[in-house]
Parts: sequence; structure tokens; C-alpha cells
Amino acid sequence: MDPLILDGRKVAQSVKNQLKLQIAELKQQDVTPKLATILVGNDEASKTYVQMKANTCHKLGMESERVFLPEETTTEELLSVIHQLNHDDTVHGILLQHPVPSQINERLAFDSIALEKDVDGVTSHGFGENTFQLGAYPCCTPAAILQVIDFYNLDLEGKHAVVIGRSPILGKPVSMMLLNRNATITVCHSKTENLPDVVKHADVVVAAVGQPKFVKGEWLKEGAIILDAGYNPGNIGDVEYETCYNKSSAITPVPGGIGPVTISMLLKHTVEAAMKQSNNLAMKLNM
Amino acid sequence: MDPLILDGRKVAQSVKNQLKLQIAELKQQDVTPKLATILVGNDEASKTYVQMKANTCHKLGMESERVFLPEETTTEELLSVIHQLNHDDTVHGILLQHPVPSQINERLAFDSIALEKDVDGVTSHGFGENTFQLGAYPCCTPAAILQVIDFYNLDLEGKHAVVIGRSPILGKPVSMMLLNRNATITVCHSKTENLPDVVKHADVVVAAVGQPKFVKGEWLKEGAIILDAGYNPGNIGDVEYETCYNKSSAITPVPGGIGPVTISMLLKHTVEAAMKQSNNLAMKLNM
Repeated sequence: MDPLILDGRKVAQSVKNQLKLQIAELKQQDVTPKLATILVGNDEASKTYVQMKANTCHKLGMESERVFLPEETTTEELLSVIHQLNHDDTVHGILLQHPVPSQINERLAFDSIALEKDVDGVTSHGFGENTFQLGAYPCCTPAAILQVIDFYNLDLEGKHAVVIGRSPILGKPVSMMLLNRNATITVCHSKTENLPDVVKHADVVVAAVGQPKFVKGEWLKEGAIILDAGYNPGNIGDVEYETCYNKSSAITPVPGGIGPVTISMLLKHTVEAAMKQSNNLAMKLNM
Repeated sequence: MDPLILDGRKVAQSVKNQLKLQIAELKQQDVTPKLATILVGNDEASKTYVQMKANTCHKLGMESERVFLPEETTTEELLSVIHQLNHDDTVHGILLQHPVPSQINERLAFDSIALEKDVDGVTSHGFGENTFQLGAYPCCTPAAILQVIDFYNLDLEGKHAVVIGRSPILGKPVSMMLLNRNATITVCHSKTENLPDVVKHADVVVAAVGQPKFVKGEWLKEGAIILDAGYNPGNIGDVEYETCYNKSSAITPVPGGIGPVTISMLLKHTVEAAMKQSNNLAMKLNM
């Protein structure tokens, strides 16, 4: 039987439809959700990403503020920009586009984003809160993976999910989120021995390795669910789609899988942040 | 061949020998490392634990401040005590004894401990920093497990470690710490299907489930390393020692395994906190 194609564009559209209603409601209270994006340097792919994010903001009636910093920006200069945005009441969410030039301490910069504006889920504090289910915004790609799972009512409880990759913004957080959904989780990486044998036991495979066509169909258990978070040059995923398609019961294509949902998660978090921050402000003014 | 018995008392002694030197050095600078413990209510086991911690402090020449709060303490009252200790320059580490009475929001109380005094590694911020290897103190039982591994030079790289349990102070942090040591990790829990089959693939088993004699020898791969973090009434571990002994290549006994190392980790973190905080204070005074 052909697998179910997990259509990220459809998932993203349903999220955006919901957001439009929430944004309209916020505007009635004179609040327009605003995302600030920071791009350091001249990386062309990064430029495209922040442009896409800003465009999607505007399409939904949100505001965006785009900060461009030169290639030679220091960590201190970047921290100062983040500090200003942290204290700007009109900005509800802050995104620092990854990667930054090598002279910058990216982790320090991420961790200087105020927790309540960390809509991209990159702070270590936010990772901890999200792992303990305390309400911080999760990283957007892991959130997108969960959104796809929920949209298609895929059952995770007791299932064995194998995550390939362990980065701070993808492999680690998605593992903790799947664990919180009662999956048994395994995290694999470059040092894993006998990777195909490990993947063989997976009911759910999350490919987050950053290498094109890395996961092969022959590694899979019959009927596995394949979630491809890879996005390599030339619109190629981390999964060898042709061979994995035949073995899987459900699979995300690339493009059109996790990717489009990721941006909608960023905007969802920004709208939520705007709702929380405007409520807090209203409470303060009423005090 | 008989397995290697991983002797926690020996590991703890080596840690304490190192601590004595560091404490002597601190005292020459007129700093005595001080741990504040907070016990809420009348739980007898908890009383014994905080007493043991205070005793070990004193044996090593450290100070301890013991705060006892009545069973009916509110969250607000507890937060106020923590707030005072956070701002007391003579206190370098704070431990809130788990569990607290049910009317208290324990997570909120944990998370109100200042990061630099969180020597028990219970804050969600500390969990995030520790997972990203940014220098926060890890939880003490996970730290003890790693200390035993290091003392006996057990190799983790590429090995498959299966952690049974997913609590915020044990299963989750130890999983992330083993992952950072380049193990492939699997986290199992009450919803895991076919647990014995999952454990069968483990080169390393961490039992952190809180049920006496839960892990059976017949589940194990021949030659697995068994780390038993369980400590159930009557000095019984989470591992069925008799049957696991024969299958393992190395095993921690209970008592005398992870337990004694856990307290020494708490003191190690407190001494490190005292060193950092006194350095910071000295820098401030010289400014």
C-alpha cells in the first residue's frame, strides 16, 4: 500500500488560518504582533530565509522589523542590539538567524534573548523549560514535526522513535518533545555504531542529520513513519525518498514537508508572545 | 568471568580527597564553602538525607545551614526563604530536599533557586545549560553516574546506553549527559512497549525507575554495564542484582554504588560554587 504523504503545506495552511483569527482579535485591542529578525553578515541562504519570514509575517497582517548587521559585527555589538530589542515593548518575538559569522559567540547571543521573546526556541533556558513542559516556546523545526504528527493524528505512545542528529536546536529538543509524548526515544549521531541496525527498530524516524539522502530505505522497518527535517542545497532532504517511500506507512516530502510548517510555528509563537505580553501590559496598567 | 564491581565508596573517597585540598585553599582566602539545605515537613527519610548531607559537609570542613519549614508551608513562604538564601553572600549552594508537601509548587520553588547556587542541578535553566555543556551544575545523581564511569575509565563512545526512567532530576539529565559523551541513548519509561527487547540492545543500562529489582538479568545483553541509580526502602536497587551480576561486565551494588557518590557530587558542586562566587566577589571589590 502506498504511504500517507504528510503534506506540510496543508498543515501550515491550517496553522495560518487559526493565526489570522488570533491576529484580527489582537488588532481589535490595538496590538499588532511583531517579529524582529537579526541577520549578521552576507550569507545568501540566510538572507532568503529572513526575507521569507518577513514576507509571511506581512501576508498574515503581522509586522516585522529586520535588523541587518555587517559581517564584522562583534559579539558585544550583537548583544547590544538584542538587549535593545528585549526592552522594546513593540517587539514580541526575536529571531537571530543561524549561523552567525565565526567571530561571534552564537550561544551567548542566543542565550541573551529574553525568554518571553524567544519565539525561535533557541535559549538554553527555553530548552530546559520546554523539556519540563513549563510553557517556553520550543524550537521551530521540532515544533513543526510535532505539529505534523498532531495534524495527521499519528499515535506516538509507546512507539519507538529514533532521532538521527543531536543539535541544540533540532535533535535534542525534538527527542525531549517526543519523550514527553510518551514515545520511547533513541538519539543517534556521528559516533553511533551500527546505525542501520538501530534505525531498523524505529516505528518513527526523525532525520535531522544535515546530509542529503542519508537515510536509506533498506534501513527501515516495514511501515515506519518518516519525518525528514533535512533541508540541503537543491531542496534535498536527509532521507532517500524513493527507497524510503516504499517501506514507510507515512512520509514527509522535501520540499513541502516539515519546512513550510517551521515558518508557521515561528509566527504562531510570535502571536502567542504578543497575546501574553499585551495581557501582562494590560494587567500592569490596571494595577 | 565475574563482573567488575563498581565501588561507589571508593569513587566518593577519591572525590572527597580532592575536595579537602580545594577547601583548604579556599580557607586560606577566608572562604568556607557553605551549603544551605531546606527541608519542608516531617518526612523521616528526607530528614535522614539532609542530616547525612550536613554531616558530610562538616566532616570535610564545610559549613551547612539547615532550614526546617513546617508541613503547612505555602509556596510563597518557601519562595521567600529561597530568595533570602539567593541573596546571602555567605551561602554558596542551596538544596531544596525533594519531595515537598503537595500544596507546594515544587517546580516553581526549584526554578527560583539562583542558577549559580543551584548545586543540586534542579532548575530547568540549569538542565538546559548542562545539556548544552555551558557550565551549570548537573543534577547530583546523574553527575555521580558519570563520575563512576570516569573513575573506572569505562568507554561510552558509540556505545548504546539505555536509560530506564525519564524524571527531570535523573532520567532526562543523565540521558543528555551520556549523549554528550558520544553514547547512543535510548530513554524508556512506563509507556515503553517491549521493554526487555529494548534493554537487550544496551551496552550500558542506567536503572532510574524507582521500583525495587525492576531490571532482570534475562533482559540483558551478555557483558552489559549496569548502573543502578535506584534506592528503594530497605537498601534495594532498581536492578535484580543476583541475576544481573552474572550477565554484566561491570555493575554497581546497592548500597555502596551510585548513592555515596551522589552526596560527594553535591559537595563538589558547592565547593566549585564557592570558588566561583569568591572569585567574582574579589573581582568586584578590585574594580
